[in-house]
Amino acid sequence: MKTLTDERAKESVRVCPDLDKVSKGSPLRVGVLFSGGPAPGGNNVVAGLFDALHKVNKESILIGFLGGPSGLLEEKFRILEKFEIDTVRNLGGFDLLGTGRTKITTEEQFALTKAVIQKLQLDGLVIIGGDDSNTNAYFIHDYLKKNEVKCRVIGIPKTIDGDLKSSEVEISFGFDTASKTYSEIIGNICIDAKSSLKYWHFIKLMGRTASHVTLECALQTSPNIALIGEEISQKKWTLKELVSQIADCVEKRASLGKNYGVILIPEGTIEFIPEVKVLIKELNRLIEEGKGTSDLTSEAKDCFNELPKDIQNQLLEDRDSHGNVQVSHIETEKLFSRMVASELKRRGSKAKFNPVHHFFGYEGRCSFPSEFDANYCYNLGYNAIRLIQSQKSGVMSVIQNVAKDVTDWKPAFLDLEKALVEEERGGKIKKVIAKSLVDLGGPVFKAFLEEREKNRIEDNYKRPGPIQFSGPLKNLITKTLELESF
Amino acid sequence: MKTLTDERAKESVRVCPDLDKVSKGSPLRVGVLFSGGPAPGGNNVVAGLFDALHKVNKESILIGFLGGPSGLLEEKFRILEKFEIDTVRNLGGFDLLGTGRTKITTEEQFALTKAVIQKLQLDGLVIIGGDDSNTNAYFIHDYLKKNEVKCRVIGIPKTIDGDLKSSEVEISFGFDTASKTYSEIIGNICIDAKSSLKYWHFIKLMGRTASHVTLECALQTSPNIALIGEEISQKKWTLKELVSQIADCVEKRASLGKNYGVILIPEGTIEFIPEVKVLIKELNRLIEEGKGTSDLTSEAKDCFNELPKDIQNQLLEDRDSHGNVQVSHIETEKLFSRMVASELKRRGSKAKFNPVHHFFGYEGRCSFPSEFDANYCYNLGYNAIRLIQSQKSGVMSVIQNVAKDVTDWKPAFLDLEKALVEEERGGKIKKVIAKSLVDLGGPVFKAFLEEREKNRIEDNYKRPGPIQFSGPLKNLITKTLELESF
Repeated sequence: MKTLTDERAKESVRVCPDLDKVSKGSPLRVGVLFSGGPAPGGNNVVAGLFDALHKVNKESILIGFLGGPSGLLEEKFRILEKFEIDTVRNLGGFDLLGTGRTKITTEEQFALTKAVIQKLQLDGLVIIGGDDSNTNAYFIHDYLKKNEVKCRVIGIPKTIDGDLKSSEVEISFGFDTASKTYSEIIGNICIDAKSSLKYWHFIKLMGRTASHVTLECALQTSPNIALIGEEISQKKWTLKELVSQIADCVEKRASLGKNYGVILIPEGTIEFIPEVKVLIKELNRLIEEGKGTSDLTSEAKDCFNELPKDIQNQLLEDRDSHGNVQVSHIETEKLFSRMVASELKRRGSKAKFNPVHHFFGYEGRCSFPSEFDANYCYNLGYNAIRLIQSQKSGVMSVIQNVAKDVTDWKPAFLDLEKALVEEERGGKIKKVIAKSLVDLGGPVFKAFLEEREKNRIEDNYKRPGPIQFSGPLKNLITKTLELESF
Repeated sequence: MKTLTDERAKESVRVCPDLDKVSKGSPLRVGVLFSGGPAPGGNNVVAGLFDALHKVNKESILIGFLGGPSGLLEEKFRILEKFEIDTVRNLGGFDLLGTGRTKITTEEQFALTKAVIQKLQLDGLVIIGGDDSNTNAYFIHDYLKKNEVKCRVIGIPKTIDGDLKSSEVEISFGFDTASKTYSEIIGNICIDAKSSLKYWHFIKLMGRTASHVTLECALQTSPNIALIGEEISQKKWTLKELVSQIADCVEKRASLGKNYGVILIPEGTIEFIPEVKVLIKELNRLIEEGKGTSDLTSEAKDCFNELPKDIQNQLLEDRDSHGNVQVSHIETEKLFSRMVASELKRRGSKAKFNPVHHFFGYEGRCSFPSEFDANYCYNLGYNAIRLIQSQKSGVMSVIQNVAKDVTDWKPAFLDLEKALVEEERGGKIKKVIAKSLVDLGGPVFKAFLEEREKNRIEDNYKRPGPIQFSGPLKNLITKTLELESF
């Protein structure tokens, strides 16, 4: 029986005209690694690298480091052959090599990196990752340069969260596919809400710092409420205020006979709420000092006491190896639904309120890349080899004008050093690539605002459906990219 | 911008040759209602009814009852017009009319049903629902017949769970689309597991009585473990044994350097485990008698004490309006992961074990119907009118030979009375349509067994990807239907 895996792996991808001109040259030896969480399209970056390398010279070699940056440090790698590249073209996943979150930051690690690069005689190292990994790419480049090692380091902009973008970088790869995958499921749930007539769906979505995914999914599906972290932060909305806003919506809809609805909540919301931020900070400090919740300041204590019992337990018991609260483990969707239930009770409301909870994240990180991501990633990889060939280092591979057809795409690069800013991280000032947050004055948020009030009350649910790989819908791009490219 | 909603709504569906011959006749007045949870394809049943009715006679009328069976009792209905039928063709959801779970069982309700049917002068009533709703369809038919009301009652086999099937009924509608939607997401998660290399995904799936959905998804995606309720029941596996099986797999994989995996758990598993069944029964009785857990029998107490704290709380606190444990609310996926973690600790195991939890159900009930479900549902609706026209009543609309192309499909019917069996429900013997369970000697379970042992250890993950509506993959059927049709 035919499968999509077979069909997609056979499908050819397109290279923009400027890249098609990659010139012949001496054989190159290039290493590549995945860093951080997977994003759809990673395999096509590798396929782009491989094909471009072999267009330059058939003797070129592509080395894949296994399990992320640790594969480089530990010399775990494999020389990639055409037959295996041909089995992963247009397929999702970072499983060709595996990925990991090891960061190369210590002097010892840099020295090790240099030694491995020299041993393998690499002309180039390609790091496929998000903001942290691209920051890392810059520092590896800087170290190699200072030590006069002639290996060019290129970063590839990856993240489903969409927070690695700028005036130069129009979109990070994976955002297109992941947000479409979530929108498919959210759209289904919206229609289920309107069919079953009795559930309020609280849906948490990935996106810890930026709410781009939630914003895109909201434009694709028109839920009743979508919280946007950046707005909560700017308006300094408290937990009580947010709960009250949701309870108002539940009551208003109940008065219209609608005991159902859909709410999107970005994973990071919890960290945007001022008093919760303070609480988490205090809890981290208290544990370190061996104290208990009785030592919280009164502001933090008030906030803690308002939280549902199971969330309180989670905050106290679920700690990482440094004793810190595991923010990403907090079931924010339940936190809100429980507090809304309490608020409705407090108000003596007669609204029927049956919450159902969801968290979508892992569901979209390894989907089959959309036609957009398949082409985009292949071009990013292809371009990386062009950059290595032209002796660029400490740069990110960039493709511009991507809202248009591939024939109009323009390869470019971003000097990573220029992208660095100083930020406080863990009490120290560090040079990093800043995460790009939702622009509350930008066209995407404006489009959301235009619909927001009526979507709270009316059932304007939309269902984009599953990603299509043939037919008239295969070339759809995200609303975010469309609106930002005008 | 084009949308899948627009594209699908325009797409025509096919009627099998025997149905295309529906003969002209007097105008008919037919009522239709949705009953129970939504399933992809419901709109196409209604579209099939509508088109067939108008082929019989352009003056025919289709009346849709709103919000499920209660719409009939409360005379909440709408005469359906062509323009609105044309907006929902090939789209998922029961939102055209809404659905509900009211059952028509009392003498008063039967009398009311009769009165409404007579008032609206219905020639036919079509009930789109699962086993209970089709049982209900039979008893409404029986009541009308005894009271000499000439309204024909036809049931339509709906359920994503796939447990409404028999030698006559090859598949219930919705199973194809829902299991493909879940398989898409599960496949993505499998690849994520193999990419990220550090998570064990515990995925709960809908299917409270039968495990058909889990079995189909297992064949589509090859996870490391898939629990099948019917097997647990047959082999009388205890909770401890199941937890031990999973912990063995976690340890074995860890010894191979694989600290990740995927486990599918049908929603109803918990009720298949003998000692949990006893515990739930006792808890329901104790609450009724105003007693506490200290009054549990020692067998039930042992089982209760083994459960993780939060699951214990759930069992004690989360009750329905009759004070019964809400089995469908139990987070079975967490129950297993917590107990596996404890078991690994007890063994002194060094396996790294980071569980992530998912529950997929609402995600697949309102998807765009697959090409199979779109055609199948349209034919079921079309056939229902043919049955009404030929004076059949108390029957289910059936289409056979559906593993083949539409041109080979055969319309038929099933006498509901013959499908009834006696079962104990809530302490009383009742005539019901029995749920069809997984046949442990059948070809589907055999296919699963053939792969099971190697899938535990090896990474044989498959990713079917999103449902396609054009191209070579649009006509795929489920493995279950394929294997059962040989």
